[in-house]
Order: sequence, then structure tokens, then C-alpha cells
Amino acid sequence: MELLEERIRKDGVVRGEDVLKVDSFLNHQLDPLLLDEIGKEFFRLFGGERVDRILTIEASGIAVAVMAARYFGCPVVFAKKSRTVNQARDVYASSAYSFTHKTENRIIVSKEYLHEGERVLLIDDFLANGQSLRALRDIVLQAGAEPVGAGIVIEKAFQPGGDELRGEGLRIESLARIRSMSERDGIRFC
Amino acid sequence: MELLEERIRKDGVVRGEDVLKVDSFLNHQLDPLLLDEIGKEFFRLFGGERVDRILTIEASGIAVAVMAARYFGCPVVFAKKSRTVNQARDVYASSAYSFTHKTENRIIVSKEYLHEGERVLLIDDFLANGQSLRALRDIVLQAGAEPVGAGIVIEKAFQPGGDELRGEGLRIESLARIRSMSERDGIRFC
Repeated sequence: MELLEERIRKDGVVRGEDVLKVDSFLNHQLDPLLLDEIGKEFFRLFGGERVDRILTIEASGIAVAVMAARYFGCPVVFAKKSRTVNQARDVYASSAYSFTHKTENRIIVSKEYLHEGERVLLIDDFLANGQSLRALRDIVLQAGAEPVGAGIVIEKAFQPGGDELRGEGLRIESLARIRSMSERDGIRFC
Repeated sequence: MELLEERIRKDGVVRGEDVLKVDSFLNHQLDPLLLDEIGKEFFRLFGGERVDRILTIEASGIAVAVMAARYFGCPVVFAKKSRTVNQARDVYASSAYSFTHKTENRIIVSKEYLHEGERVLLIDDFLANGQSLRALRDIVLQAGAEPVGAGIVIEKAFQPGGDELRGEGLRIESLARIRSMSERDGIRFC
């Protein structure tokens, strides 16, 4: 997506070889007009499919997911990060290791908002090692629902998550795919 | 806002005398069409003012704020909940006691995304004791910016935050104001 790549080039800040900060439009400050275009693009890509529900993770996924959901006309459910390890009966739970924060995140979704047979589109802001996306897919499968695919805003294509999950049969559409980045040479897209 | 009150009556779940769960459309599952109407209503109420920026708190405020921001055509900044107590130089910080979770939440906003002289609309999902809203206002004032007012989805008008903050001169527009609620008698709006 040209508009998004331009914005990443202009406002993204590379730290080291694998951290990309996009706080100015996606992770702290949000640009609603760009998010609206991103939502529209996800609908262009997945609108031919039956989508009963969009599933994302708090917090940064919420804005993207809700903008997309306007076009799909379906509800969003956002998985919550939970600090308690107790397994509750009324939630689906999975966990995702965050390489950024070096912590294991347990994420939960109430059983009330995800049902057997539903077709669920996964949406997230970043895809790198694929931990979050695996956890979301895991929750969809626990519910007996079907993942339609995953809409990702920025994929770090030099990290293995995207290729691995595609290899496992998940359809992934990333609006910007970064082939390499560094503080010196900037960002190269696929 | 009639549509919102109807939805709260239909899907809100009252626990005890002061907990209202609206997980089915606002706090876990999100209804994008309702959120769009809420955003439009905030624009009707505050659209006559100059609004440079909308400030909210993760996670539940994000969806409402970004839907409103589409109408205002301005960026959203969401305050992040921070577990570290260290005062960083590059952020504005404040803290809010959560009566629900019985914890002190420190919230931070990067100094990059809030500037002197800006007019900032505060948006949040709930107003009860006013702790979050005070923390947001505090951050706006630290930046030398001006709070235009606060757009709240649901105000528990039987708790003191709204009246106190109005008494201090903050314009607050709550789309649903609850006068009283109980498991037995249900919800009464103002």
C-alpha cells in the first residue's frame, strides 16, 4: 500500500536492525484518515470472503480493527492481555512471547464473543515472529471457529513469522512488507 | 443519546450497585456502527470548537476516540498505562486510582504528541470517580495545552467525578448519564 509505505519512510524511526517505531501514526498517536484507508484496503482484500467477526489484540490493534469493521459491518473483539495465570472457564486463553518486551503475554477472549462455525478475520498492527498472530489463531481454533486470514499493517518480512504461518496455510495480507532496515540505510520494502 | 441508552438497557449487565458491564459493545466486543454514531455525536457537541487533538486512554477509549477523530479530522493520542514508576524526561505522566481494579495506574504521553497552545478534546468510555479524566486533564495542562472539554460515553452520575469536574470548570458531555442502577431495578438514566 503506497500511502502507508510513504508514511513509514517519512515518519518511521528505525532503531538498530529490528525495531521500527511508528508511534506518530499507529502506536501512540493515531492518524484516523490513514487508518480509514487501511481499513478500506483490508476490505478490498478480504471483502469477498464471509467475515462474521474481526479479532485483534489490545491496544494498538483496536484502532485498525474498528476502522476495518466499519467496512465489513461486523463486530470487533479485542483479546485482552491478562496478568493472572488462572485459567477461567468462561474465556479462551493463549499466550504469546513478546520479543520486544521480553515477557510472556497471556491473552484472553470471553467465550461469549467467539462461536463455533464463525469465520474470523485476524487483524494486527505488526507481524514479526508471529507470536501474537499464532495466539489469535489458537483462540479462534479453540472456539471451533475458522480463521479467514490475517490483515497486518506492517510485516517485518526479514523475521520468520509471516513465512512460517503462510506455510501452515494461513492467508496473510500485509499492507507494508519490510525486506530490511537499519539506522544507516533506512527501510527497504519487498 | 437515545440509541446508546437503548443499547445499555438491552445489553448492559449490572453487578451490585455500581458495576456496569458493557463488554458486548464497548469494552471487549465493539460495535463499529454504534461507535460511529457516538463519534458523530461528539462532533455535533464539540464540532463548533477548535480541536487540534483528541486525547484518550488505552485500551477502551481508543475505538471511541478514533471514530470521533474521523469527523474532527484531527489526530488521536492515547495515553499509555505504564508499570514503571521512573519519571522519563520525554513523557508527561500522571496517575489515576482505579476503583474497579484497586490499583494506581500511571499514565504517560510522549511530549512529542502534545504541545503548548493546542486545544485538546478528552474522550473516555466511562466517567465515575473522575480519576482517569483528572489524569488526562493534568497531562494536557502539563503540556501547556488547553482542555476543550470531555466527551464521555457513559457517566455514572451517582458517583461524584462528573459534578466535581464540572464544578472546576471542565465542560463534560456524557452521552448516557446513569442516575441509579441495581441488579433488581435495572438502570435509570438522568
